[in-house]
Amino acid sequence: MEYRKIKDEDDHGVSSDIESVKGKTHTVASSNIAMATLGVGSSERINWKRKGVVTCALTVLTSSQAILIVWSKRAGKYEYSVTTANFLVETLKCALSLLALTRIWKNEGVTDDNRLSTTYDEVKVFPIPAALYLFKNLLQYYIFAYVDAPGYQILKNLNIISTGVLYRIILKKKLSEIQWAGFILLCCGCTTAQLNSNSDRVLQTSLPGWIMAIVMALLSGFAGVYTEAIIKKRPSRNINVQNFWLYVFGMAFNAIAIVIQDFDAVANKGFFHGYSFITVLMILNHALSGIAVSMVMKYADNIVKVYSTSVAMLLTAVVSVFLFNFHLSLAFFLGSTVVSVSVYLHSAGKLR
Amino acid sequence: MEYRKIKDEDDHGVSSDIESVKGKTHTVASSNIAMATLGVGSSERINWKRKGVVTCALTVLTSSQAILIVWSKRAGKYEYSVTTANFLVETLKCALSLLALTRIWKNEGVTDDNRLSTTYDEVKVFPIPAALYLFKNLLQYYIFAYVDAPGYQILKNLNIISTGVLYRIILKKKLSEIQWAGFILLCCGCTTAQLNSNSDRVLQTSLPGWIMAIVMALLSGFAGVYTEAIIKKRPSRNINVQNFWLYVFGMAFNAIAIVIQDFDAVANKGFFHGYSFITVLMILNHALSGIAVSMVMKYADNIVKVYSTSVAMLLTAVVSVFLFNFHLSLAFFLGSTVVSVSVYLHSAGKLR
Repeated sequence: MEYRKIKDEDDHGVSSDIESVKGKTHTVASSNIAMATLGVGSSERINWKRKGVVTCALTVLTSSQAILIVWSKRAGKYEYSVTTANFLVETLKCALSLLALTRIWKNEGVTDDNRLSTTYDEVKVFPIPAALYLFKNLLQYYIFAYVDAPGYQILKNLNIISTGVLYRIILKKKLSEIQWAGFILLCCGCTTAQLNSNSDRVLQTSLPGWIMAIVMALLSGFAGVYTEAIIKKRPSRNINVQNFWLYVFGMAFNAIAIVIQDFDAVANKGFFHGYSFITVLMILNHALSGIAVSMVMKYADNIVKVYSTSVAMLLTAVVSVFLFNFHLSLAFFLGSTVVSVSVYLHSAGKLR
Repeated sequence: MEYRKIKDEDDHGVSSDIESVKGKTHTVASSNIAMATLGVGSSERINWKRKGVVTCALTVLTSSQAILIVWSKRAGKYEYSVTTANFLVETLKCALSLLALTRIWKNEGVTDDNRLSTTYDEVKVFPIPAALYLFKNLLQYYIFAYVDAPGYQILKNLNIISTGVLYRIILKKKLSEIQWAGFILLCCGCTTAQLNSNSDRVLQTSLPGWIMAIVMALLSGFAGVYTEAIIKKRPSRNINVQNFWLYVFGMAFNAIAIVIQDFDAVANKGFFHGYSFITVLMILNHALSGIAVSMVMKYADNIVKVYSTSVAMLLTAVVSVFLFNFHLSLAFFLGSTVVSVSVYLHSAGKLR
C-alpha cells in the first residue's frame, strides 16, 4: 500500500503538470510564423540555453523527488491522503504562476500574450489532459488487482514507447531511425536498471493486466503529447498564462478525485491528516517539477522530457548510494550504460 | 566442476580454431593488391555470399553447440577429460582440412596457393594464437579461486570489448561511432540476457579476480585478432592450408595441455574414459564450428564473429524453450532487444 501511494503521488505530481501547458486559439497561429522568421541567429541561441536550463531543472527536481520519496519511506509510513496532496500541488502551481504573472505585468505591462483573460476557443482544450490523467489515476487503483507494485513500476516503462509513438503520430514530428533505436534502448535500459529478483513475475501478468497497462501508458503518453500540441500552437503566448489555466483545471479535477477516492477519510480525519515536514517538502518539490515539465514542453518536447526523467531515475540511484548506503546492482550498471548510449544516439542521430 | 568443464570445452573448441587461419609470407603481399583490382563487381557479390553463408553456419553451429551442452548436462554428469576431447577436435579439423585439400588438388591441381609445403617465414606465426589460448586456458583454472562459474560467464562478456579494442589497435580498422555504440550495447545486452538472481555476486569480485578476467579477455581477443591479421595477409592462400597448419599446432599445444592437466587421469583411466555418444557429437560439432570460425576470419572479420556467436547465444535460449521447457526471464527479453538494436546499429552505422 505504501508503495502504491508513492507511485500515485509520483504520477499525479509530474503528470498533472505535463499537460499544464497550453492555451492558444487557431486564429493567432499566423503571428508565430512571422515571429519565427525574425532574428533566427540570436533567438536560436536563447532557445537552446532555455532548453538546457529547463531540462537540467527537470532532471534535478525529478531526482530529488525520488530521493524525498525514499527519505519519507525510511522515516516511516505516511498516512496522508494522496489526493489532497495533489490538490495542494495544483494550488501551489497556480499561485506560483500568478506570482510570476504579476511580476511580468509590472515589468512589461499587460499585452495580448500575457493577459490572463482568455476566449472559449483558447480555454476549451485545457481540461482534456487533466481529465485524461484523472482517468488514468483511477485506473491505477484497479491495475493492482493484476500486478504487484514493483511489477507496475516495470510496466510503467511502456510510457516511454507510447510517448514516442504518439509523438510521431499526433505531433507528426519525425525521429531518425537511429533516434528510434535510441528510444527503444531507453525503454530497455530503464527497465533493466530496475530489475530485481522478483521482476520475472511481471511476465505472468494476465491479459487484462497487460491491456490495462497498455491503456494507461497510452493515456499518459497521449496526455503528454496533447499538452505539447496545445502549448506549441501559440508559442508567443506567455507560459505562465498557459500554466495558470492548466492548473486551474488540475485543481478542479483533483477536487473530483478527492470526492471519489478519499471523501470518507478526509471527512473523518481532516484534510491535513498525516501531513509531516517531508510531506510539505514533497508538495513543494512536485509543484516545482510540475512547472519544469511545463517549461520543457514549451521550449523542448516530450522526447526531451522522457530522457530527462529517465536520466533522473538513474541519478537518484547513484545519489542514494551516498545518502542511504544503497547497493547498486549489476543490472543497474548495465541499464545505465544502455541509457547513456541511448542519450548519445538521440543526439548523434539528429535528422539534418 | 561440471559447469567449469563445459566452459573449458566451449573455449577450446571455438577458440583454438579462431586462430587456425593464417599462412602468408610478407613477400607475397603485393600479388593480392593486383588481384583486388581485378573484377571487383562479381567478386564482391561472391564475397558477400560467402560471408553470409559462413556467418550463418557459425551462428547455427554455435547455438547447436550450446544445446548439446545443455543436453549432455541433463543426460547426467560427464566425466571425460576435456583436454583429450580438445585434442581430438584439433585432430578432426586437421583431417577435414586435408580431405578438402585432396579434393581441391584433384580438381584444380597443385598451385602455389594450395600446396601444403610452406616456408619458415609463413609458418613461424602459426603457433602464436594456439600458445595464447593454451595460456588462457591454464589461467582459467586459477580464476575460479576468485569467481564462481556463473560469475565467470558474466565476466567473459569482457571478450566483446577487448576484441573491439584490439581489432581497432592491431588491425587498424575503423568502426564508426554508431558502430562503437552498437558494440558497447552488444556487451551490455549479452550480459543482461544472462542475468540471474546471483549475478550481483560478480560485483564483489576481488581485484586479482578482475585483473585475471581482464587479462584473459585480452588474451582471447588478441588471439582472435592476431589470427585474422595473419590469415588476411595473404588472401589468395587456400584457407584449408592455413587451417591445416593452425590445427597441427593446435594438436601440439593440446597434447601439452593433456600432459600438464590430465596426465594422471589419462594414464590411469585411459584416453577415452567417460566418452559417450553425446561426447562424440560435441567433438564433431566443435570441429565444424571451429572450421566455421576460420572461414568467418577469412571472409569476414572478428566483429562479425563476435556478433554471430552472441546472436547464437540468444538463439540457443529460444530453442531451449521448445526443447527443454526453459523459461525465459525478463532480463533475457531486455538483453535480446538490446542485442537486436546493436546488430541494427552495426549495419546502419557503416562508414561510407
